[in-house]
Amino acid sequence: MLTKDDTICAISTPPGKGAIAVIRCSGPDAFSICNQIVRLSSDKGSLSAQSPNTIHFSKIIDGNEIIDQVVVTIFKSPHSYSGEDTIEISCHGSPYIQKKILELLVKSGARMANAGEFTMRAFLNGKLDLTQVEAIADLIASGSQAAHRVAMNQMRGGFTRELKKLREKLLHFTTLIELELDFSEEDVEFADRVQLKDLITEISGVLSNLSDSFALGNVIRQGIPVAIVGKTNAGKSTLLNLLLREEKAIVSDIAGTTRDSIEDVISIRGVHFRLTDTAGLRHTEDEIEKLGIERTWQKVDQASIIIQVIDPASNPAELLQLSEQIQESPGNEAKKRIVVLNKMDKVAEDQLDNLLINFKKKLPTGDLLIPMSAKKGTNLALLEQALLEATTSSMADENDVIITNVRHFEALEKALEAMLRVKSGLSNGLPDDLLAQDIRETLHYLGEITGEITNDQILDNIFKNFCIGK
Amino acid sequence: MLTKDDTICAISTPPGKGAIAVIRCSGPDAFSICNQIVRLSSDKGSLSAQSPNTIHFSKIIDGNEIIDQVVVTIFKSPHSYSGEDTIEISCHGSPYIQKKILELLVKSGARMANAGEFTMRAFLNGKLDLTQVEAIADLIASGSQAAHRVAMNQMRGGFTRELKKLREKLLHFTTLIELELDFSEEDVEFADRVQLKDLITEISGVLSNLSDSFALGNVIRQGIPVAIVGKTNAGKSTLLNLLLREEKAIVSDIAGTTRDSIEDVISIRGVHFRLTDTAGLRHTEDEIEKLGIERTWQKVDQASIIIQVIDPASNPAELLQLSEQIQESPGNEAKKRIVVLNKMDKVAEDQLDNLLINFKKKLPTGDLLIPMSAKKGTNLALLEQALLEATTSSMADENDVIITNVRHFEALEKALEAMLRVKSGLSNGLPDDLLAQDIRETLHYLGEITGEITNDQILDNIFKNFCIGK
Repeated sequence: MLTKDDTICAISTPPGKGAIAVIRCSGPDAFSICNQIVRLSSDKGSLSAQSPNTIHFSKIIDGNEIIDQVVVTIFKSPHSYSGEDTIEISCHGSPYIQKKILELLVKSGARMANAGEFTMRAFLNGKLDLTQVEAIADLIASGSQAAHRVAMNQMRGGFTRELKKLREKLLHFTTLIELELDFSEEDVEFADRVQLKDLITEISGVLSNLSDSFALGNVIRQGIPVAIVGKTNAGKSTLLNLLLREEKAIVSDIAGTTRDSIEDVISIRGVHFRLTDTAGLRHTEDEIEKLGIERTWQKVDQASIIIQVIDPASNPAELLQLSEQIQESPGNEAKKRIVVLNKMDKVAEDQLDNLLINFKKKLPTGDLLIPMSAKKGTNLALLEQALLEATTSSMADENDVIITNVRHFEALEKALEAMLRVKSGLSNGLPDDLLAQDIRETLHYLGEITGEITNDQILDNIFKNFCIGK
Repeated sequence: MLTKDDTICAISTPPGKGAIAVIRCSGPDAFSICNQIVRLSSDKGSLSAQSPNTIHFSKIIDGNEIIDQVVVTIFKSPHSYSGEDTIEISCHGSPYIQKKILELLVKSGARMANAGEFTMRAFLNGKLDLTQVEAIADLIASGSQAAHRVAMNQMRGGFTRELKKLREKLLHFTTLIELELDFSEEDVEFADRVQLKDLITEISGVLSNLSDSFALGNVIRQGIPVAIVGKTNAGKSTLLNLLLREEKAIVSDIAGTTRDSIEDVISIRGVHFRLTDTAGLRHTEDEIEKLGIERTWQKVDQASIIIQVIDPASNPAELLQLSEQIQESPGNEAKKRIVVLNKMDKVAEDQLDNLLINFKKKLPTGDLLIPMSAKKGTNLALLEQALLEATTSSMADENDVIITNVRHFEALEKALEAMLRVKSGLSNGLPDDLLAQDIRETLHYLGEITGEITNDQILDNIFKNFCIGK
């Protein structure tokens, strides 16, 4: 896959029928291949004779037959997305025409591109570093404002610009220290240890901040995890369906959005929530049911927000009891909890006030109580508002630098560990050769993030997430 | 809808996620509206200062936030699809970005385009006649080579070029005849009756040929109708499923093709067949079943090809009997018939030859007998070959002029009727004013085809079939 000797082609617009579709052809023979199927108006000459960054009304021909009337865009190396000579054919968006033009390009000598192969070439040609490549995949996949912002920041160079500079400085010191090792018998010191220590403190700080941002980044990328818990029959599934039904109405007026196979991701004003329905909680001797309840607690552990659904006919003390159970789990104190007092349509009007007072008495401080009827949809807006407010801290600012990528996170952690070893090594008078080894390790992991150091496996993993045509 | 005073925008590529998407903005304010959200590199100035037919790497901005890095194409009136100033924004294909850019355009003063509104403007600006407009919708919808060819011919001016010329000539004669009416007391003859008669013969011939081509055009557009008939339990549905299963394998490697809701259209080497399974034929007193069998005969009437499925255990005489029943229906003599002798996997090997001989004896001349096992898929290739051969006459040549559109067909028929009235009127010495009236009627219907004469209802009907963005 790492070749760029041949010419590739693919449909770059979304699959299916549309007003127009764009087919991309990129590589050393892009012009000569396209010349065989593109007929410019007679006074224009060949494709390569045209100025770069111009468009041309033309025809696609298959022998004597006209396949389509198209607009062709000329990009000349290095001023194209891939960095290579590139032709983009904007044709009528019928699947038949799209397929036919692709077939003609292949017949004329182009090869069908693999997933992400245009971007791969942009990387190989030095147009993008590896984090920018990853940001492009994220950008296309991002469905929320927060995810879009993070990806856009990263695509524009985001956090790697600083990392690259710091890596350069560190590289400089390594060279000096390794020079010292060459002259080890003469006891010279080319690398200023105080300056080195300062640099390492600076790098550690940057790495540590980036690494810390991953928890937030992960939430932005995948949606904020919300667990819906409660006793059996409290109305958890009805509530989930209510939230999802609303969502369906929201997404349906956005042209072209398709819902993912994960059926329980909803979006409230651009913020994504990953909803999990759980098994009803109750005492049971049934082994299978016990497993279900165990899994419920796991989901509670993973969630940032817990919606507890409660039946107004139950004892208010149960509310407290369940809350205590949730709090017992370590790390759960920080979770936001919203209590939904469900089935309010079944409560007689003259008992409403009393009921609310009774439940509120048992409500742990900081928790929110929302009376609802999931069945009738009452107060859904209140619940959505509460979900949004519980997550204000999860929203990325447009200038925030946030790590969303596991690969970056792991490399940052390893680079940070090595940096901290260098730091303590400097304080403890560790021999220079061991110091140099840890610094080299940091350089390696920083280089892996930007792609200055890479291997086939890393690249394969990255590009398999791309769509064909990018 | 007939306005072109405002500026419209829409996503023109297929809906969903892709490497890139194209957003179109067209109208008198396209440049000033896009200027508010497109930031070109600082040395370039505004969008309208750029040369037409050039592309520009730029950013889409929302206040201070960068929404995307895009390529912008500049089209200047009248050299664009719509004939107006047009900007095309080629952005990253995330649904979020597509929606966001559209929102920004609307916020800056553009209006979301209606279905086909860019094409509507091309028509209003005289870039396309009405048959070309319709051909574009057909072109995008066409899924077979034959349908694509017909639509492409029509888009390139196809049959209307000739019609327009003939209409011009006829208009000339009408003017002369109407002039005669003005001078009716003086008994002058400005219009040469012999020349007029020749012209009318020519026009009638053209109209009649075009109108005749509609039967074929309709088949090309909708697929060749095939009815699968036979007694209950002969294996009709198994055969249908076999044909459809094959089809699934064929379409799955064509990126982006989605199967229509009509679940029984198959494509064999680019030719579309519309398969209809029918209720099993047998004597019955059951009223509902009788209705089903009645409908079977209707489908047989509508089909061009009939596949008769027969159980080898049945009496070969039944084959002849059913064939006779089919032939009884008027117009059915011309239909191609293929007899599938099904369930051959159940026939003992030493009886095969005898069985085939017995059935072939009863086979009406011209019919084809194919021994198959629909269950095991045996001889499917033979059946597909037979279907293709039965339709060679239905394939359009790349230069054929074929009417596929009901609207054109109806107008042609009416124009032809009026022409024939003029023809007989000339022979019978009909008064000039009646002649002129019929000629005017022909002119009207010919004008309706090309759109020289039109009304809102015709336009509404045409454009409601378009996708948004075209």
